[in-house]
Amino acid sequence: MFDLYIANKNYSSWSLRPWVLMQVLEIPFKEHLMPFEGGFGASHDTFIHFSPSGLVPCLVDKTVDDGLAVWDSLAIIEYLAEQHANVWPSEKAARAWARAAAAEMHSGFGALRDECSMNCGVRVALNSLSAKLKADVTRLDALWQQGLERFGGPFLAGAHFTAVDAFYAPVAFRVQTFGLPVSEQAQAYAERLLALPAMQGWYQAALEETWREPMHEAETLKNGTLSADYRHA
Amino acid sequence: MFDLYIANKNYSSWSLRPWVLMQVLEIPFKEHLMPFEGGFGASHDTFIHFSPSGLVPCLVDKTVDDGLAVWDSLAIIEYLAEQHANVWPSEKAARAWARAAAAEMHSGFGALRDECSMNCGVRVALNSLSAKLKADVTRLDALWQQGLERFGGPFLAGAHFTAVDAFYAPVAFRVQTFGLPVSEQAQAYAERLLALPAMQGWYQAALEETWREPMHEAETLKNGTLSADYRHA
Repeated sequence: MFDLYIANKNYSSWSLRPWVLMQVLEIPFKEHLMPFEGGFGASHDTFIHFSPSGLVPCLVDKTVDDGLAVWDSLAIIEYLAEQHANVWPSEKAARAWARAAAAEMHSGFGALRDECSMNCGVRVALNSLSAKLKADVTRLDALWQQGLERFGGPFLAGAHFTAVDAFYAPVAFRVQTFGLPVSEQAQAYAERLLALPAMQGWYQAALEETWREPMHEAETLKNGTLSADYRHA
Repeated sequence: MFDLYIANKNYSSWSLRPWVLMQVLEIPFKEHLMPFEGGFGASHDTFIHFSPSGLVPCLVDKTVDDGLAVWDSLAIIEYLAEQHANVWPSEKAARAWARAAAAEMHSGFGALRDECSMNCGVRVALNSLSAKLKADVTRLDALWQQGLERFGGPFLAGAHFTAVDAFYAPVAFRVQTFGLPVSEQAQAYAERLLALPAMQGWYQAALEETWREPMHEAETLKNGTLSADYRHA
Protein backbone atom coordinates (compact mmCIF):
# COMPACT_ATOMS: atom_id res chain seq x y z
CA MET A 1 0.00 0.00 0.00
CA PHE A 2 1.35 3.37 -1.02
CA ASP A 3 1.10 6.55 1.05
CA LEU A 4 0.33 9.60 -1.05
CA TYR A 5 0.86 13.03 0.48
CA ILE A 6 -1.12 15.80 -1.17
CA ALA A 7 -2.28 19.32 -0.34
CA ASN A 8 -5.69 21.03 -0.59
CA LYS A 9 -7.86 19.51 -3.29
CA ASN A 10 -9.20 22.95 -4.12
CA TYR A 11 -5.76 24.36 -4.97
CA SER A 12 -3.10 21.71 -5.46
CA SER A 13 -2.92 20.95 -9.16
CA TRP A 14 0.28 18.94 -8.84
CA SER A 15 -1.31 16.71 -6.19
CA LEU A 16 -4.19 15.89 -8.50
CA ARG A 17 -1.98 14.25 -11.12
CA PRO A 18 -0.94 11.04 -9.31
CA TRP A 19 -4.13 11.02 -7.24
CA VAL A 20 -6.47 10.86 -10.25
CA LEU A 21 -4.28 8.34 -12.06
CA MET A 22 -4.21 6.01 -9.08
CA GLN A 23 -7.96 6.37 -8.63
CA VAL A 24 -8.73 5.63 -12.27
CA LEU A 25 -6.31 2.69 -12.44
CA GLU A 26 -7.48 1.43 -9.03
CA ILE A 27 -4.01 1.43 -7.52
CA PRO A 28 -4.61 1.33 -3.74
CA PHE A 29 -3.12 4.13 -1.64
CA LYS A 30 -3.62 5.89 1.66
CA GLU A 31 -4.23 9.59 1.22
CA HIS A 32 -2.57 12.11 3.54
CA LEU A 33 -3.98 15.57 2.94
CA MET A 34 -1.75 18.32 4.35
CA PRO A 35 -3.31 21.76 3.89
CA PHE A 36 -1.16 24.68 2.74
CA GLU A 37 -0.25 27.08 5.52
CA GLY A 38 0.37 30.71 4.73
CA GLY A 39 1.20 30.71 1.08
CA PHE A 40 3.21 28.80 -1.45
CA GLY A 41 6.54 28.65 0.39
CA ALA A 42 5.43 28.62 4.01
CA SER A 43 4.30 24.99 4.06
CA HIS A 44 7.85 23.91 3.25
CA ASP A 45 8.82 23.46 6.91
CA THR A 46 5.88 21.11 7.48
CA PHE A 47 6.10 19.24 4.20
CA ILE A 48 9.84 18.62 4.58
CA HIS A 49 9.01 15.99 7.23
CA PHE A 50 7.64 13.68 4.56
CA SER A 51 8.92 15.16 1.28
CA PRO A 52 12.65 15.78 0.64
CA SER A 53 11.91 18.86 -1.50
CA GLY A 54 9.29 20.25 0.87
CA LEU A 55 6.76 19.98 -1.96
CA VAL A 56 3.73 17.84 -2.71
CA PRO A 57 2.78 15.41 -4.07
CA CYS A 58 5.05 12.84 -2.50
CA LEU A 59 4.55 9.09 -2.70
CA VAL A 60 6.03 6.94 0.05
CA ASP A 61 6.52 3.22 -0.49
CA LYS A 62 7.02 1.69 2.96
CA THR A 63 7.82 -1.71 1.47
CA VAL A 64 11.20 -0.45 0.21
CA ASP A 65 14.06 0.17 2.67
CA ASP A 66 12.86 2.33 5.58
CA GLY A 67 10.28 3.98 3.32
CA LEU A 68 11.15 5.19 -0.15
CA ALA A 69 10.00 8.75 -0.92
CA VAL A 70 9.28 9.73 -4.54
CA TRP A 71 8.81 13.48 -4.36
CA ASP A 72 7.75 14.60 -7.81
CA SER A 73 4.52 14.03 -9.75
CA LEU A 74 6.21 12.77 -12.92
CA ALA A 75 8.66 10.56 -11.02
CA ILE A 76 5.70 9.09 -9.11
CA ILE A 77 4.04 8.24 -12.43
CA GLU A 78 7.18 6.48 -13.70
CA TYR A 79 7.54 4.65 -10.38
CA LEU A 80 3.98 3.38 -10.72
CA ALA A 81 4.53 2.53 -14.40
CA GLU A 82 7.24 0.07 -13.43
CA GLN A 83 4.77 -1.89 -11.29
CA HIS A 84 1.33 -1.40 -12.85
CA ALA A 85 -0.05 -1.90 -16.34
CA ASN A 86 -1.74 0.87 -18.31
CA VAL A 87 -0.02 3.89 -16.71
CA TRP A 88 1.24 4.80 -20.17
CA PRO A 89 -0.21 3.73 -23.54
CA SER A 90 0.97 0.30 -24.65
CA GLU A 91 1.80 1.36 -28.22
CA LYS A 92 5.31 2.80 -28.62
CA ALA A 93 4.54 5.96 -30.60
CA ALA A 94 1.52 6.80 -28.42
CA ARG A 95 3.63 6.26 -25.31
CA ALA A 96 6.40 8.57 -26.59
CA TRP A 97 3.83 11.22 -27.50
CA ALA A 98 2.13 10.89 -24.09
CA ARG A 99 5.41 11.22 -22.23
CA ALA A 100 6.44 14.30 -24.23
CA ALA A 101 3.04 15.93 -23.72
CA ALA A 102 3.09 15.20 -19.97
CA ALA A 103 6.64 16.49 -19.65
CA GLU A 104 5.71 19.65 -21.56
CA MET A 105 3.03 20.28 -18.93
CA HIS A 106 5.49 19.46 -16.16
CA SER A 107 8.00 22.15 -17.13
CA GLY A 108 5.95 24.50 -19.30
CA PHE A 109 2.71 26.42 -19.64
CA GLY A 110 4.03 29.07 -17.25
CA ALA A 111 1.40 31.68 -18.05
CA LEU A 112 -1.46 29.20 -17.67
CA ARG A 113 0.01 28.20 -14.32
CA ASP A 114 0.62 31.77 -13.09
CA GLU A 115 -2.44 33.55 -14.45
CA CYS A 116 -5.00 30.76 -14.02
CA SER A 117 -3.98 28.97 -10.85
CA MET A 118 -6.19 26.02 -9.96
CA ASN A 119 -9.08 26.92 -7.67
CA CYS A 120 -11.66 24.22 -8.37
CA GLY A 121 -14.64 25.70 -6.53
CA VAL A 122 -14.84 29.17 -8.05
CA ARG A 123 -15.63 30.72 -11.40
CA VAL A 124 -13.73 33.77 -12.62
CA ALA A 125 -14.39 36.14 -15.51
CA LEU A 126 -10.98 37.03 -16.91
CA ASN A 127 -10.56 40.73 -17.72
CA SER A 128 -8.35 39.88 -20.67
CA LEU A 129 -5.86 37.28 -21.75
CA SER A 130 -2.20 38.31 -21.77
CA ALA A 131 -0.19 37.51 -24.90
CA LYS A 132 1.64 34.77 -23.01
CA LEU A 133 -1.60 33.22 -21.76
CA LYS A 134 -3.05 33.33 -25.28
CA ALA A 135 0.04 31.54 -26.56
CA ASP A 136 -0.29 28.88 -23.84
CA VAL A 137 -3.98 28.33 -24.60
CA THR A 138 -3.25 28.10 -28.33
CA ARG A 139 -0.54 25.52 -27.71
CA LEU A 140 -2.73 23.60 -25.29
CA ASP A 141 -5.54 23.43 -27.80
CA ALA A 142 -3.24 22.30 -30.62
CA LEU A 143 -1.69 19.63 -28.41
CA TRP A 144 -5.03 18.24 -27.25
CA GLN A 145 -6.42 18.23 -30.78
CA GLN A 146 -3.31 16.52 -32.10
CA GLY A 147 -3.55 13.74 -29.53
CA LEU A 148 -7.28 13.24 -29.92
CA GLU A 149 -7.04 13.09 -33.72
CA ARG A 150 -3.89 11.03 -33.97
CA PHE A 151 -4.81 8.35 -31.45
CA GLY A 152 -8.56 8.40 -31.99
CA GLY A 153 -9.74 9.56 -28.55
CA PRO A 154 -11.68 9.83 -26.38
CA PHE A 155 -8.56 10.32 -24.24
CA LEU A 156 -5.40 12.14 -25.26
CA ALA A 157 -3.41 9.09 -26.27
CA GLY A 158 -6.22 6.79 -27.29
CA ALA A 159 -9.07 4.76 -25.85
CA HIS A 160 -7.90 4.68 -22.23
CA PHE A 161 -7.18 7.26 -19.55
CA THR A 162 -3.39 7.25 -19.05
CA ALA A 163 -0.81 9.39 -17.27
CA VAL A 164 -0.94 12.12 -19.92
CA ASP A 165 -4.63 12.67 -19.13
CA ALA A 166 -3.73 12.78 -15.44
CA PHE A 167 -1.23 15.53 -16.22
CA TYR A 168 -3.88 17.61 -18.00
CA ALA A 169 -6.64 16.91 -15.47
CA PRO A 170 -5.81 20.08 -13.48
CA VAL A 171 -6.09 22.04 -16.73
CA ALA A 172 -9.66 20.83 -17.13
CA PHE A 173 -10.46 22.51 -13.79
CA ARG A 174 -8.72 25.67 -15.02
CA VAL A 175 -10.72 25.67 -18.26
CA GLN A 176 -13.86 25.41 -16.12
CA THR A 177 -12.89 28.04 -13.54
CA PHE A 178 -11.65 30.66 -16.00
CA GLY A 179 -13.80 29.82 -19.01
CA LEU A 180 -10.71 29.59 -21.17
CA PRO A 181 -11.42 30.04 -24.88
CA VAL A 182 -10.66 26.66 -26.42
CA SER A 183 -11.95 24.83 -29.47
CA GLU A 184 -15.09 22.73 -29.33
CA GLN A 185 -12.97 19.58 -29.45
CA ALA A 186 -10.79 20.72 -26.55
CA GLN A 187 -13.81 21.85 -24.54
CA ALA A 188 -15.42 18.44 -25.01
CA TYR A 189 -12.24 16.73 -23.85
CA ALA A 190 -12.07 18.93 -20.72
CA GLU A 191 -15.69 18.09 -19.97
CA ARG A 192 -14.97 14.38 -20.42
CA LEU A 193 -12.23 14.63 -17.83
CA LEU A 194 -14.45 16.61 -15.44
CA ALA A 195 -17.18 13.96 -15.72
CA LEU A 196 -14.96 11.07 -14.61
CA PRO A 197 -16.05 9.67 -11.23
CA ALA A 198 -12.54 10.22 -9.83
CA MET A 199 -12.60 13.87 -10.94
CA GLN A 200 -16.09 14.32 -9.51
CA GLY A 201 -14.85 12.85 -6.24
CA TRP A 202 -11.92 15.27 -6.12
CA TYR A 203 -14.20 18.19 -6.99
CA GLN A 204 -16.77 17.41 -4.28
CA ALA A 205 -14.01 17.07 -1.68
CA ALA A 206 -12.56 20.41 -2.86
CA LEU A 207 -15.95 22.08 -2.42
CA GLU A 208 -16.19 20.74 1.12
CA GLU A 209 -12.82 22.15 2.19
CA THR A 210 -13.19 25.18 4.42
CA TRP A 211 -9.58 26.36 4.26
CA ARG A 212 -9.17 29.66 2.40
CA GLU A 213 -5.52 30.28 1.65
CA PRO A 214 -5.07 34.03 1.03
CA MET A 215 -2.20 33.81 -1.44
CA HIS A 216 -3.98 31.26 -3.63
CA GLU A 217 -7.20 33.29 -3.44
CA ALA A 218 -5.36 36.46 -4.51
CA GLU A 219 -3.62 34.59 -7.34
CA THR A 220 -6.96 33.40 -8.65
CA LEU A 221 -8.35 36.91 -8.93
CA LYS A 222 -5.33 38.81 -10.13
CA ASN A 223 -6.59 39.02 -13.71
CA GLY A 224 -10.34 38.68 -13.27
CA THR A 225 -13.41 39.03 -11.13
CA LEU A 226 -15.23 36.38 -9.16
CA SER A 227 -18.46 35.31 -10.82
CA ALA A 228 -19.35 32.33 -8.59
CA ASP A 229 -18.10 30.45 -5.56
CA TYR A 230 -19.54 26.97 -5.13
CA ARG A 231 -17.51 26.09 -2.06
CA HIS A 232 -19.40 25.25 1.13
CA ALA A 233 -19.15 27.38 4.28
CA MET B 1 20.22 6.42 -35.85
CA PHE B 2 18.51 9.20 -33.93
CA ASP B 3 18.37 12.83 -34.98
CA LEU B 4 18.84 15.23 -32.05
CA TYR B 5 17.90 18.87 -32.55
CA ILE B 6 19.60 21.24 -30.14
CA ALA B 7 20.36 24.97 -29.91
CA ASN B 8 23.54 26.89 -29.10
CA LYS B 9 25.91 24.90 -26.92
CA ASN B 10 26.88 28.09 -25.10
CA TYR B 11 23.33 28.81 -23.97
CA SER B 12 20.98 25.84 -24.30
CA SER B 13 20.95 24.05 -20.97
CA TRP B 14 18.00 21.85 -21.91
CA SER B 15 19.77 20.68 -25.07
CA LEU B 16 22.77 19.56 -23.06
CA ARG B 17 20.78 16.98 -21.04
CA PRO B 18 20.07 14.36 -23.72
CA TRP B 19 23.22 15.29 -25.67
CA VAL B 20 25.61 14.52 -22.80
CA LEU B 21 23.74 11.36 -21.83
CA MET B 22 23.86 10.00 -25.36
CA GLN B 23 27.55 10.87 -25.63
CA VAL B 24 28.46 9.21 -22.33
CA LEU B 25 26.38 6.10 -23.06
CA GLU B 26 27.63 6.01 -26.67
CA ILE B 27 24.15 6.08 -28.17
CA PRO B 28 24.68 7.14 -31.79
CA PHE B 29 22.88 10.24 -33.03
CA LYS B 30 23.13 12.91 -35.68
CA GLU B 31 23.32 16.38 -34.15
CA HIS B 32 21.36 19.26 -35.69
CA LEU B 33 22.41 22.55 -34.08
CA MET B 34 19.85 25.31 -34.68
CA PRO B 35 21.05 28.63 -33.24
CA PHE B 36 18.62 30.83 -31.31
CA GLU B 37 17.38 33.81 -33.28
CA GLY B 38 16.39 37.00 -31.51
CA GLY B 39 15.62 35.83 -28.01
CA PHE B 40 13.88 33.04 -26.22
CA GLY B 41 10.56 33.06 -28.05
CA ALA B 42 11.59 34.21 -31.51
CA SER B 43 13.11 30.90 -32.57
CA HIS B 44 9.73 29.24 -32.19
CA ASP B 45 8.76 29.78 -35.83
CA THR B 46 11.92 28.03 -37.01
CA PHE B 47 11.96 25.27 -34.42
CA ILE B 48 8.31 24.39 -35.03
CA HIS B 49 9.38 22.75 -38.31
CA PHE B 50 11.03 19.91 -36.39
CA SER B 51 9.64 20.25 -32.84
CA PRO B 52 5.88 20.26 -32.11
CA SER B 53 6.31 22.65 -29.16
CA GLY B 54 8.73 24.95 -30.98
CA LEU B 55 11.31 24.13 -28.31
CA VAL B 56 14.59 22.22 -28.17
CA PRO B 57 15.81 19.61 -27.55
CA CYS B 58 13.81 17.37 -29.84
CA LEU B 59 14.71 13.81 -30.71
CA VAL B 60 13.45 12.38 -33.99
CA ASP B 61 13.38 8.64 -34.56
CA LYS B 62 13.02 8.13 -38.31
CA THR B 63 12.59 4.39 -37.89
CA VAL B 64 9.10 4.84 -36.37
CA ASP B 65 6.16 5.83 -38.57
CA ASP B 66 7.05 8.86 -40.71
CA GLY B 67 9.49 10.05 -38.06
CA LEU B 68 8.55 10.12 -34.39
CA ALA B 69 9.31 13.40 -32.61
CA VAL B 70 9.98 13.37 -28.85
CA TRP B 71 10.05 17.04 -27.92
CA ASP B 72 11.04 17.23 -24.28
CA SER B 73 14.33 16.48 -22.52
CA LEU B 74 12.84 14.17 -19.89
CA ALA B 75 10.61 12.36 -22.39
CA ILE B 76 13.68 11.83 -24.59
CA ILE B 77 15.49 10.25 -21.63
CA GLU B 78 12.58 7.87 -20.98
CA TYR B 79 12.36 7.04 -24.70
CA LEU B 80 16.04 6.12 -24.68
CA ALA B 81 15.66 4.20 -21.40
CA GLU B 82 13.21 1.83 -23.09
CA GLN B 83 15.84 0.86 -25.65
CA HIS B 84 19.23 1.26 -23.98
CA ALA B 85 20.72 -0.06 -20.75
CA ASN B 86 22.13 2.18 -18.04
CA VAL B 87 20.06 5.31 -18.73
CA TRP B 88 18.75 5.05 -15.15
CA PRO B 89 20.38 3.21 -12.22
CA SER B 90 19.61 -0.51 -12.19
CA GLU B 91 18.70 -0.63 -8.47
CA LYS B 92 15.08 0.24 -7.74
CA ALA B 93 15.54 2.78 -4.91
CA ALA B 94 18.40 4.52 -6.70
CA ARG B 95 16.31 4.68 -9.87
CA ALA B 96 13.33 6.20 -8.03
CA TRP B 97 15.61 8.75 -6.35
CA ALA B 98 17.28 9.61 -9.67
CA ARG B 99 13.95 10.09 -11.41
CA ALA B 100 12.62 12.33 -8.62
CA ALA B 101 15.82 14.40 -8.59
CA ALA B 102 15.80 14.78 -12.39
CA ALA B 103 12.10 15.70 -12.37
CA GLU B 104 12.70 18.28 -9.62
CA MET B 105 15.26 19.93 -11.92
CA HIS B 106 12.86 19.66 -14.85
CA SER B 107 10.10 21.68 -13.17
CA GLY B 108 11.90 23.52 -10.39
CA PHE B 109 14.92 25.60 -9.45
CA GLY B 110 13.27 28.66 -10.99
CA ALA B 111 15.62 31.21 -9.43
CA LEU B 112 18.71 29.27 -10.47
CA ARG B 113 17.31 29.12 -13.99
CA ASP B 114 16.31 32.80 -14.15
CA GLU B 115 19.16 34.44 -12.29
CA CYS B 116 22.00 32.19 -13.46
CA SER B 117 21.15 31.31 -17.03
CA MET B 118 23.65 29.00 -18.69
CA ASN B 119 26.40 30.83 -20.56
CA CYS B 120 29.27 28.34 -20.64
CA GLY B 121 32.02 30.60 -21.94
CA VAL B 122 31.87 33.49 -19.48
CA ARG B 123 32.53 34.08 -15.80
CA VAL B 124 30.33 36.42 -13.79
CA ALA B 125 30.78 37.91 -10.33
CA LEU B 126 27.31 37.98 -8.77
CA ASN B 127 26.51 41.22 -6.95
CA SER B 128 24.45 39.32 -4.41
CA LEU B 129 22.26 36.26 -4.16
CA SER B 130 18.51 36.83 -3.90
CA ALA B 131 16.65 34.95 -1.16
CA LYS B 132 15.12 32.67 -3.80
CA LEU B 133 18.49 31.94 -5.40
CA LYS B 134 19.98 31.18 -1.97
CA ALA B 135 17.11 28.76 -1.31
CA ASP B 136 17.70 27.04 -4.67
CA VAL B 137 21.44 26.71 -4.05
CA THR B 138 20.81 25.35 -0.55
CA ARG B 139 18.39 22.77 -1.93
CA LEU B 140 20.74 21.87 -4.79
CA ASP B 141 23.59 21.31 -2.37
CA ALA B 142 21.48 19.17 -0.04
CA LEU B 143 20.19 17.10 -2.96
CA TRP B 144 23.64 16.48 -4.42
CA GLN B 145 25.09 15.60 -1.01
CA GLN B 146 22.21 13.25 -0.29
CA GLY B 147 22.70 11.37 -3.56
CA LEU B 148 26.48 11.18 -3.27
CA GLU B 149 26.33 9.91 0.32
CA ARG B 150 23.41 7.55 -0.08
CA PHE B 151 24.57 5.83 -3.25
CA GLY B 152 28.34 6.13 -2.66
CA GLY B 153 29.30 8.34 -5.61
CA PRO B 154 31.17 9.46 -7.58
CA PHE B 155 27.97 10.20 -9.52
CA LEU B 156 24.65 11.28 -8.06
CA ALA B 157 23.01 7.87 -8.02
CA GLY B 158 26.09 5.69 -7.68
CA ALA B 159 29.11 4.49 -9.59
CA HIS B 160 27.90 5.34 -13.07
CA PHE B 161 26.85 8.49 -14.93
CA THR B 162 23.09 8.22 -15.45
CA ALA B 163 20.25 10.47 -16.58
CA VAL B 164 20.13 12.33 -13.26
CA ASP B 165 23.72 13.47 -13.79
CA ALA B 166 22.77 14.54 -17.31
CA PHE B 167 19.98 16.66 -15.82
CA TYR B 168 22.41 18.42 -13.47
CA ALA B 169 25.20 18.79 -16.05
CA PRO B 170 23.97 22.28 -17.04
CA VAL B 171 24.09 23.23 -13.35
CA ALA B 172 27.79 22.36 -13.28
CA PHE B 173 28.34 25.01 -15.97
CA ARG B 174 26.27 27.47 -13.90
CA VAL B 175 28.33 26.76 -10.78
CA GLN B 176 31.45 27.48 -12.85
CA THR B 177 30.14 30.62 -14.57
CA PHE B 178 28.65 32.26 -11.49
CA GLY B 179 30.96 30.82 -8.81
CA LEU B 180 27.92 29.65 -6.86
CA PRO B 181 28.65 29.08 -3.16
CA VAL B 182 28.29 25.33 -2.69
CA SER B 183 29.84 22.85 -0.27
CA GLU B 184 33.18 21.23 -0.96
CA GLN B 185 31.43 17.96 -1.80
CA ALA B 186 29.07 19.66 -4.29
CA GLN B 187 31.92 21.65 -5.83
CA ALA B 188 33.92 18.45 -6.33
CA TYR B 189 30.92 16.82 -8.00
CA ALA B 190 30.45 19.78 -10.35
CA GLU B 191 34.13 19.60 -11.26
CA ARG B 192 33.84 15.87 -11.91
CA LEU B 193 31.04 16.56 -14.37
CA LEU B 194 32.98 19.37 -16.05
CA ALA B 195 35.99 17.08 -16.49
CA LEU B 196 34.09 14.41 -18.42
CA PRO B 197 35.26 14.16 -22.05
CA ALA B 198 31.69 14.71 -23.27
CA MET B 199 31.36 17.88 -21.16
CA GLN B 200 34.77 19.08 -22.35
CA GLY B 201 33.66 18.50 -25.92
CA TRP B 202 30.47 20.50 -25.40
CA TYR B 203 32.43 23.28 -23.67
CA GLN B 204 35.02 23.61 -26.43
CA ALA B 205 32.28 23.74 -29.05
CA ALA B 206 30.49 26.41 -27.00
CA LEU B 207 33.67 28.50 -26.87
CA GLU B 208 33.99 28.27 -30.65
CA GLU B 209 30.48 29.55 -31.33
CA THR B 210 30.49 33.12 -32.56
CA TRP B 211 26.75 33.79 -32.13
CA ARG B 212 26.03 36.35 -29.43
CA GLU B 213 22.32 36.33 -28.59
CA PRO B 214 21.47 39.67 -26.91
CA MET B 215 18.68 38.42 -24.66
CA HIS B 216 20.77 35.57 -23.28
CA GLU B 217 23.75 37.90 -22.81
CA ALA B 218 21.60 40.42 -20.91
CA GLU B 219 20.11 37.63 -18.76
CA THR B 220 23.59 36.48 -17.80
CA LEU B 221 24.60 39.90 -16.50
CA LYS B 222 21.38 41.00 -14.85
CA ASN B 223 22.69 40.31 -11.34
CA GLY B 224 26.43 40.53 -11.79
CA THR B 225 29.43 41.82 -13.69
CA LEU B 226 31.50 40.06 -16.33
CA SER B 227 34.84 38.91 -14.98
CA ALA B 228 36.02 36.83 -17.96
CA ASP B 229 34.93 35.79 -21.44
CA TYR B 230 36.74 32.76 -22.82
CA ARG B 231 34.76 32.58 -26.04
CA HIS B 232 36.70 32.91 -29.29
CA ALA B 233 36.21 35.79 -31.70
